[in-house]
Amino acid sequence: MRDAQPVTVLGIDPGTAITGYGIIRKEGRNPLTLVECGVIRTKPRDALPQRLAEIHEGVLELIRRHKPTVLSIEDIFYARNVRTTVVLGHARGVILLAGAQAGLEIHEYPPSEIKKAVAGTGAATKLQIQFMVTRLLRLKSAPQPSDAADGVAAALAFAMMPDLPRIEPIRLRTIR
Amino acid sequence: MRDAQPVTVLGIDPGTAITGYGIIRKEGRNPLTLVECGVIRTKPRDALPQRLAEIHEGVLELIRRHKPTVLSIEDIFYARNVRTTVVLGHARGVILLAGAQAGLEIHEYPPSEIKKAVAGTGAATKLQIQFMVTRLLRLKSAPQPSDAADGVAAALAFAMMPDLPRIEPIRLRTIR
Repeated sequence: MRDAQPVTVLGIDPGTAITGYGIIRKEGRNPLTLVECGVIRTKPRDALPQRLAEIHEGVLELIRRHKPTVLSIEDIFYARNVRTTVVLGHARGVILLAGAQAGLEIHEYPPSEIKKAVAGTGAATKLQIQFMVTRLLRLKSAPQPSDAADGVAAALAFAMMPDLPRIEPIRLRTIR
Repeated sequence: MRDAQPVTVLGIDPGTAITGYGIIRKEGRNPLTLVECGVIRTKPRDALPQRLAEIHEGVLELIRRHKPTVLSIEDIFYARNVRTTVVLGHARGVILLAGAQAGLEIHEYPPSEIKKAVAGTGAATKLQIQFMVTRLLRLKSAPQPSDAADGVAAALAFAMMPDLPRIEPIRLRTIR
């Protein structure tokens, strides 16, 4: 059933300074199409609450404009710098909030799974991701900056997950 | 000028499962009064986006009801468990967002500063905090659970900061 209706997916690569996004459309077995991609930028000199409000409003605006039904977002588990990761958690929090408020189906993938889905390996470089995003969506050039490509990659990770085979339930007689 | 108008302060101790809050009123040199305190609880079996939406809505509801002008919130810098701290960052993100959306003046204090302001030492225990909150606000019993007392303590930290002395600027002749 997953292929019956066209699906619009909003992919997000969260960040406090730059949040990358990509919106792609999946329609049956047709090639995936890129609807829009870009970044939400906030000013480093603004206070964190103000920046969070801009990210939240930016995501809600994308949802209002393109009406996706799925939000696909990079997960964060590990951190080199704890402080940076915690601040990133704040940004991710307001993005998940926007998705929940809009009633989207939310999928979270670790960075390595997104890379693997898009480029075949969890250790793919930024350049490989940009190349594969360009190729998979038949674009003339790679999305810029790389944060936008990462947002598109998050959307692709959901769109390219293999559909589950349809299993016909078999009723068995209970044997005791 | 800070003492001229009555000030209502919303203090918050953020958490994904339990967010403690306290609303106190400061009116000139009068004793501080507790308006309300309590906790916003979310269900561990609910997905994180749903829980974040409940925390965000809970904080907005408190703001609508009591019309504070200041949000005083515990900061987080350090973590024993990175994963826990990152999830806590998500909760803190939607609380700061609610404050920014309502146009509140936001103050963030490290846990040790809140403890010091309320109990005189940055190493105060939960029991000492509960005792001092009860005493400072002349309550009949300590706020329960301790998360509620921690929310009140965050509000107290702002309300009890010494007012800055009014400095008359002196114009000096520039000597070169």
